[in-house]
Amino acid sequence: MAVDPRFHPVAQPLTLGDAAATAGGELRGGDPQRLISGVGPLDAAGPQAVSFLDNRRYAGLLPATRAAAVVLAEDFAGRLPEGVAAIVTAQPYLGFARIAARLHPRPAPRPGIHPSAVVDPSALLGEGCEVGPLAVIGAGAEIGAGCVVGPHAVVGEGVVLGDGCRIGAHASLSHCIAGRGVVVHPGARIGQEGFGFAVTPEGRFETMPQLGRVILGDLVEIGANSTVDRGSQGDTVLGAGTRLDNLVQIGHNVRTGRGCVIVAQVGISGSATLGDGVQMGGQSGLTGHLTLGDRVRVSAQAGVMNDVPAGTDVAGTPAWPAKDTLRAMAALRKLGQKPAQG
Amino acid sequence: MAVDPRFHPVAQPLTLGDAAATAGGELRGGDPQRLISGVGPLDAAGPQAVSFLDNRRYAGLLPATRAAAVVLAEDFAGRLPEGVAAIVTAQPYLGFARIAARLHPRPAPRPGIHPSAVVDPSALLGEGCEVGPLAVIGAGAEIGAGCVVGPHAVVGEGVVLGDGCRIGAHASLSHCIAGRGVVVHPGARIGQEGFGFAVTPEGRFETMPQLGRVILGDLVEIGANSTVDRGSQGDTVLGAGTRLDNLVQIGHNVRTGRGCVIVAQVGISGSATLGDGVQMGGQSGLTGHLTLGDRVRVSAQAGVMNDVPAGTDVAGTPAWPAKDTLRAMAALRKLGQKPAQG
Amino acid sequence: MAVDPRFHPVAQPLTLGDAAATAGGELRGGDPQRLISGVGPLDAAGPQAVSFLDNRRYAGLLPATRAAAVVLAEDFAGRLPEGVAAIVTAQPYLGFARIAARLHPRPAPRPGIHPSAVVDPSALLGEGCEVGPLAVIGAGAEIGAGCVVGPHAVVGEGVVLGDGCRIGAHASLSHCIAGRGVVVHPGARIGQEGFGFAVTPEGRFETMPQLGRVILGDLVEIGANSTVDRGSQGDTVLGAGTRLDNLVQIGHNVRTGRGCVIVAQVGISGSATLGDGVQMGGQSGLTGHLTLGDRVRVSAQAGVMNDVPAGTDVAGTPAWPAKDTLRAMAALRKLGQKPAQG
Repeated sequence: MAVDPRFHPVAQPLTLGDAAATAGGELRGGDPQRLISGVGPLDAAGPQAVSFLDNRRYAGLLPATRAAAVVLAEDFAGRLPEGVAAIVTAQPYLGFARIAARLHPRPAPRPGIHPSAVVDPSALLGEGCEVGPLAVIGAGAEIGAGCVVGPHAVVGEGVVLGDGCRIGAHASLSHCIAGRGVVVHPGARIGQEGFGFAVTPEGRFETMPQLGRVILGDLVEIGANSTVDRGSQGDTVLGAGTRLDNLVQIGHNVRTGRGCVIVAQVGISGSATLGDGVQMGGQSGLTGHLTLGDRVRVSAQAGVMNDVPAGTDVAGTPAWPAKDTLRAMAALRKLGQKPAQG
Repeated sequence: MAVDPRFHPVAQPLTLGDAAATAGGELRGGDPQRLISGVGPLDAAGPQAVSFLDNRRYAGLLPATRAAAVVLAEDFAGRLPEGVAAIVTAQPYLGFARIAARLHPRPAPRPGIHPSAVVDPSALLGEGCEVGPLAVIGAGAEIGAGCVVGPHAVVGEGVVLGDGCRIGAHASLSHCIAGRGVVVHPGARIGQEGFGFAVTPEGRFETMPQLGRVILGDLVEIGANSTVDRGSQGDTVLGAGTRLDNLVQIGHNVRTGRGCVIVAQVGISGSATLGDGVQMGGQSGLTGHLTLGDRVRVSAQAGVMNDVPAGTDVAGTPAWPAKDTLRAMAALRKLGQKPAQG
Repeated sequence: MAVDPRFHPVAQPLTLGDAAATAGGELRGGDPQRLISGVGPLDAAGPQAVSFLDNRRYAGLLPATRAAAVVLAEDFAGRLPEGVAAIVTAQPYLGFARIAARLHPRPAPRPGIHPSAVVDPSALLGEGCEVGPLAVIGAGAEIGAGCVVGPHAVVGEGVVLGDGCRIGAHASLSHCIAGRGVVVHPGARIGQEGFGFAVTPEGRFETMPQLGRVILGDLVEIGANSTVDRGSQGDTVLGAGTRLDNLVQIGHNVRTGRGCVIVAQVGISGSATLGDGVQMGGQSGLTGHLTLGDRVRVSAQAGVMNDVPAGTDVAGTPAWPAKDTLRAMAALRKLGQKPAQG
């Protein structure tokens, strides 16, 4: 299966030998000079393409694959059919990603400012930036070299972007300082007012001024239509390399460490603190003012209501250590079965 | 209650006889020549309007309704007051929808391209398209006849839309092939990069190139601010007639059958496969790589972690067959009650 | 810690005496003529700034604070170090909010229409409105005095906004009547079609025309990327002072009372009715057609499936009275523990 050339650049062909070297793997059973020109899943990749096996759920597809080569772990190398080369590595997904990125490199920015964009004269743009149709760049914004600002994106007054950032269509940023290589996908909202108000004795709400910023570390990625509120007084901070999927909510004053992974539709309430390498499964949530230690893993849909020490896996609502939750749910299921079914 | 003419076209009057025929129902107790000019809920419809009863929760409103006629099922026809006609049908909601659509037809597109829109010269637009203020249509896009592209919508490079599509304000589409009659509500994000990356031995994340597309079948509808990521290698596919409510997340490589119903805030993780007619309740979620058979129904807030065979109803987190979950929750509630209350 | 002047106006200095009066509190241990020029959290506020203590979780920071003064309750006044004044009040959060708002008042609108905005000639704008770059205002829209319409915002045909509304970047409003002082944060979607369709005997979906409006009471606030569908026949109504956080879904025909608080990622299904002062925790949801009485509180992630009487707290999925749910979860946890651990 080749990529659709309407949407993706056609591949730069690569030899199998180059591919194996790129993947950091060992080529077995294939001609190192054979050219490949694409990638594809096991059941669709043709004889010009490289595929991979990472999730053993798909191992049954190996014997019938028509790919030129498959990136996989040692254990599975023997299951390939005649004529299909193996690229053997302990990290097949990483190896494959690197081959795919060489075959289909991300298109470089097309430097220039579209005539329909509205760029304030006081904004500073680095070398080689691409600013799309109808983008808006506010007064005093500072944009590093080689950034791409998509159509209809708004980079607000005073916002700072490091080199090589990519801002998707319709995204908006305000009150934000971003490092280099930050990626904001379409429709994400960064830096708006958080949800903060005081209640008067008469029961009316008075907005608490939201006087902080959003600080995005190098290489942070924010998914489509996600929302990251600015701090109320201090800052909201996402540590370097942290990635948010789509439709994630980050409340004011949240601070994450480096390399956190926040899956779609997670909600992190205000003033939570996450260590390095925290992982939160889809639709999980934290109540406010919690602390999660380094490498905590939160299961999908879990609701965390207490601090969690480093290295702990939690699950359920309220979230308990994952093993406790699994046992409790097994006991509950037994309890709910009719005697005749037990 | 009449519609607000600032927002909706005024009704084309209709006779009760025509209305009954449109609904595929039988008119009882009313003059077929009587004119009606609007629709409304049971407690607000006046003597020029038609109403309906579909949810028996509202049956208590029947005796006091002032509507000209009510579309309802046989069982309830006897509860109408004197002077209110019945339009009796086995599908009152469908019948009423058809009457409402005749009285208040959707306004036709207003052909033309707003002078502020940015349309690439290489884009192809069919007959009778309406392109709103500040819309952006990219190079090589192909837009069918009679499409409406709303204000600020972005139809990206190479995107294909069939005839009669409607793209809402601020929606963005890239890497997407859509059939005819597709509706994308405001702010929806279609075709952006999915959430895919490999982890290096040092713990850094490297993005997996996302080389696929989004394929939307005929008559698919995507709710406001929903997100549909493109495939990583193959495609993300929504089958014909499938409808997504607002704020839904569809991960890369998801494939649904025809006529699925995905309620608001559902999250479908990457590479899940849904059969035809699958229904997912609000805020429910699937973990990745699952298969749901035809006509599976997932309860609101359920978290599905295993494959589900066709025709099964599931509920809870982790999701079990709905009856098991109901029994388990009843047992749990009993367990939690104090002896004095049990 | 001072605010970042790139993003926030520099404070207007204030005396401690004025600050205490603004907060409605009593100044203790400080010179009423001492000037303050900023606000900050307890651990970052410097000797020119005022801080506060509202959540006792942070009381341990009191002895080391370097703030000029701290707004707090009587019980904690004795814990401040030498030289730090106390502003004692029964509502420290409210008092602090008022000081912060005096030091950092919200910038006034900058009257004028950006030349890139697209304003229909039939739209009516009140005195002193600010209309940002590339905003779109439709035919017949009526916008009150002193409103701010952000960059790329769309105020649709016929939409009415009261005085002093603020519409964020990329927000879209259609079919909507808003009171005064309404705030719509970036990317929110107001007034689009709800999720309504009938099913034909052949299994096809036919859209139910959505003929109502959205009515937003005075001082309503809608969070970033939230979605509020218009009514199907009657209206969707948010009562005065009601606040929605980010990524909230409000289905068609929902009606809330005054002063409801709806936290991020909540989903309220169609035709639900909420009384005054209802609070819904993050990621909670209601099934359709429910009624919640005044001052009902719904816990985070709860799934409410039945009507709830006024003044009741509910938790869990399905939601039960919160005390029952807490007991049931405690019993469940015991059940899941190994005998050796019990």
